Amino acid sequence: MKVGQYLFNKLYKANVKYAFGIPGDFALPLYASLSQSPIIPIVTTHEPSAGFAADAYARLNGLGLAVVTYGAGALNIINPIAQAYAEKSPVIVVSGAPEIKNRNPDLLLHHRVKTFETQIEIFQRITNISVLLQDPHLITEQIDDVIDTVLRTKRPGYIEIPRDLVYKEIPKFRCKHSRRPEKKLEVFSEAMEEIVSRINASRKPVVIAGVEIERFGLGGKFIKLVEKYNFPVATSIIGKAVFPEHHKNFIGTYMGAVGNPAARKLVEESDCLLILGEMITDTNTGLFTSHIKRENLIHASSEHIAISHHNFDEIDITDLINYLLNSKKIKKFSFKNSFAQKKAPPVKDGKLTIKAIFRELSSLPDGKYSFITDVGDCLFGCVDLNADIILNPGYYASMGFGVPAAIGAFLALPSRKPISLVGDGGFQMTGVEISTLVKSDIPALIIVVNNGAFSSLEAMDRKRDYFTVHSWDYVKLAESLGAEGIRVNTLKDFKKALELGTQKNKAFLIEAIIERSDISETLERIGNAVHRKFSRKK
Amino acid sequence: MKVGQYLFNKLYKANVKYAFGIPGDFALPLYASLSQSPIIPIVTTHEPSAGFAADAYARLNGLGLAVVTYGAGALNIINPIAQAYAEKSPVIVVSGAPEIKNRNPDLLLHHRVKTFETQIEIFQRITNISVLLQDPHLITEQIDDVIDTVLRTKRPGYIEIPRDLVYKEIPKFRCKHSRRPEKKLEVFSEAMEEIVSRINASRKPVVIAGVEIERFGLGGKFIKLVEKYNFPVATSIIGKAVFPEHHKNFIGTYMGAVGNPAARKLVEESDCLLILGEMITDTNTGLFTSHIKRENLIHASSEHIAISHHNFDEIDITDLINYLLNSKKIKKFSFKNSFAQKKAPPVKDGKLTIKAIFRELSSLPDGKYSFITDVGDCLFGCVDLNADIILNPGYYASMGFGVPAAIGAFLALPSRKPISLVGDGGFQMTGVEISTLVKSDIPALIIVVNNGAFSSLEAMDRKRDYFTVHSWDYVKLAESLGAEGIRVNTLKDFKKALELGTQKNKAFLIEAIIERSDISETLERIGNAVHRKFSRKK
Repeated sequence: MKVGQYLFNKLYKANVKYAFGIPGDFALPLYASLSQSPIIPIVTTHEPSAGFAADAYARLNGLGLAVVTYGAGALNIINPIAQAYAEKSPVIVVSGAPEIKNRNPDLLLHHRVKTFETQIEIFQRITNISVLLQDPHLITEQIDDVIDTVLRTKRPGYIEIPRDLVYKEIPKFRCKHSRRPEKKLEVFSEAMEEIVSRINASRKPVVIAGVEIERFGLGGKFIKLVEKYNFPVATSIIGKAVFPEHHKNFIGTYMGAVGNPAARKLVEESDCLLILGEMITDTNTGLFTSHIKRENLIHASSEHIAISHHNFDEIDITDLINYLLNSKKIKKFSFKNSFAQKKAPPVKDGKLTIKAIFRELSSLPDGKYSFITDVGDCLFGCVDLNADIILNPGYYASMGFGVPAAIGAFLALPSRKPISLVGDGGFQMTGVEISTLVKSDIPALIIVVNNGAFSSLEAMDRKRDYFTVHSWDYVKLAESLGAEGIRVNTLKDFKKALELGTQKNKAFLIEAIIERSDISETLERIGNAVHRKFSRKK
Repeated sequence: MKVGQYLFNKLYKANVKYAFGIPGDFALPLYASLSQSPIIPIVTTHEPSAGFAADAYARLNGLGLAVVTYGAGALNIINPIAQAYAEKSPVIVVSGAPEIKNRNPDLLLHHRVKTFETQIEIFQRITNISVLLQDPHLITEQIDDVIDTVLRTKRPGYIEIPRDLVYKEIPKFRCKHSRRPEKKLEVFSEAMEEIVSRINASRKPVVIAGVEIERFGLGGKFIKLVEKYNFPVATSIIGKAVFPEHHKNFIGTYMGAVGNPAARKLVEESDCLLILGEMITDTNTGLFTSHIKRENLIHASSEHIAISHHNFDEIDITDLINYLLNSKKIKKFSFKNSFAQKKAPPVKDGKLTIKAIFRELSSLPDGKYSFITDVGDCLFGCVDLNADIILNPGYYASMGFGVPAAIGAFLALPSRKPISLVGDGGFQMTGVEISTLVKSDIPALIIVVNNGAFSSLEAMDRKRDYFTVHSWDYVKLAESLGAEGIRVNTLKDFKKALELGTQKNKAFLIEAIIERSDISETLERIGNAVHRKFSRKK
């Protein structure tokens, strides 16, 4: 078996059906090998988009793959892979590279930067594991190690393959994988005992469902757990919709003082708060405006479980959820959800606003759509979007995620139509990826929320010339790429466009024009918090 | 004086009139300070484009500047800055960043990857100097040091500014700059004596003019030197047009066996070859198909001077050119240029080909245009483009350079109209930057050479589905961004379009359709060399 064949077969067995990237001369054998495997290459227009598409695919599929060339290819995918690292998305980057025998320090091969190792040194800083394949006897172990580590930690890995190795035969032998050390039973018992007694002693337990519930495939178990004990559940901005937000136990998206006020009240007044699988970031805490008493907190992540001020380092969120689900020692609570998101009364027409857009989208049925939001008010405003799948870059917050992520989301879950919300600024970065939607027959609906500016930055600063986003004819642009589109600026027309767009079975763009000053309530609260904090008046 | 004010005033004095980038929340004070300085911010659609624009600006202006935000901004500019490093373009990247006091390892601020230092560690690998500003007492020295190093080495530098420092007052004191050590007179004399005697002993000296002649501002002196001794001059692919290619001493672009055959003959048969300011890369040597006898070689770069097999490490190309220009010891040669590029006879019509496109462009007058080529056959084919300014990524070879570079080229040299040649693949990466051309009133002419494929990769491999570039309506796309355009597929129509496009005083796009299999002679030779080398038949 050849090296490339081993790699792609192994990845295919790990459920990778698509590879995102762009070929280049150092990756020619790699692409040739890929095309002989059952994995289908999806060539995007630009590497940053390949990274975002692979990330979205990984979030929904459990593992994603990008295949790029050395230098100009791989170094163009740094930002999306950094985001996948920050947000725990299991993406593997495979890069073609110069032959080891040619790696003479005096040899200037094209695409080389400082040294031949510059590239892997950079990837070491944004992945959990980075390997350069060299010795055929070690290659299978190296490849297995990357796949195992990425699957276990849900963070990116990097494999660099010199191009003359792709078609090298690998010696047949079984390699041993390093195993994760067994968890200590004593640690586990002590932690669980304390958690059970804290929950039973509490009167108002609340759970914040975090993004790792989705990353580690715990969604189904988590719903059962919530229903078993009748816990109220909030989501976070990055963990939007990891718990179905039309569920009767859902209380809103918590984001400190800037998120949903009802969720804030319940969360901050809880005498036993369980944060499950969430990162405690500036965004999630509403720029650190949250008031959570550490004494009442149980925080479980994939890295450890912390109770009040002490940590248990060898156990994690999966252990906790499995234990709680099967425990017979915990009482059922009598929580009744009077705080639930009230169904907004239907509004027929009027000015189109960001709030109205999210209200309309929230009324779409569960089970049919994968929502994706880009950065800016499409992200902040989605606090008020209630759905069952929402992908967003809620922590690292790289603009340009929206359109490419629709590619990955559809290929991972083809039974759902992707609906991407993206501002005009984010769209200008990677929106031409509509081309790949058309080429690959992906019936995504792209909603460009066009307010003519970087409105989030304006909310945190003030109106500035350099926040103006140059005006494009987005519909015409979509047409030039082979898609269709429509431009609307009233609520009535938006409703009609949404009906049309959700029924289309090809890529469709809605340019939704709103006023430059129209921002969501969340963004307004964020702007106020920033101004209070930095007294920014320059 | 405030930190931001000091930085931007100092950069302005170093001839930086424009800054390329995109604001973001960690860069809000930085942009506010920038807008109070005389430097004009040019906001592009995407950070990779800002990097390419700053690079092109730096090549023509002597120093370029990109201003970005932390994380999602800065890590999205890695590839173009890596290219600027590889190709010696003096670009300074200034990134906003989190406050030092907030850099608690447990604090998850958005845009952060592994640690707060991940970003600077990555920039250290693609710049010659990277600094994080912290102590107000050291800031002026740090800033001066970056500017000096970038100007001296023509390689990028990186300045990271925590956002609370931008408006901090800096203590008034004069700082001492480190000075470059004096060159050793003895080294210099010995080297010059040997070079003079080698030149005088030769019968057929030839000079290859390299890219550093332009980077170090030696163009004018170099022409005088050539005319004083009547040396024949070849250029290299990355050093295209650093010597005016309509000059009577120009013999063609040397690229080993794959470049201009006439230039190859003269270069490889020379008994005294001077390579001045060139990197000896795989591209420049036509994938190492060059046959240059090291014994006959004098190779001067900004780093050292090498003669035959020995090096002089403390002297450089500037020393050599100054010495040769003023020397009275060297004879004048009797070279007569029978190898010059023959003026191709005018062709009126026929199928449009890549060769015909370069022939038409070569007939445009000197002094009026800055030519820019993207990667692929726009780069390889430009061996046959003779002009007086050509910018290209001839070594690192990142696609997507073409359109953004037109922004930087025009702002650096507004007396010349930029003409960018870009393939359909390269255009799809960053072509929407036409938006910035329109917004900033830049009358660039963009020629999209549309053959529907990554034809260079096909020449090195074979026809493959994944080399097909999805078809766009490029004219309609240009219109959607506010520019005009025209589509042509015959020579006659291309000539007319070129006449129209060169006369327009606004951004204009020509979609030049050629056949998928139509490649330049250079690319054909490259393809053959690759197939011979790798016997690639998969």
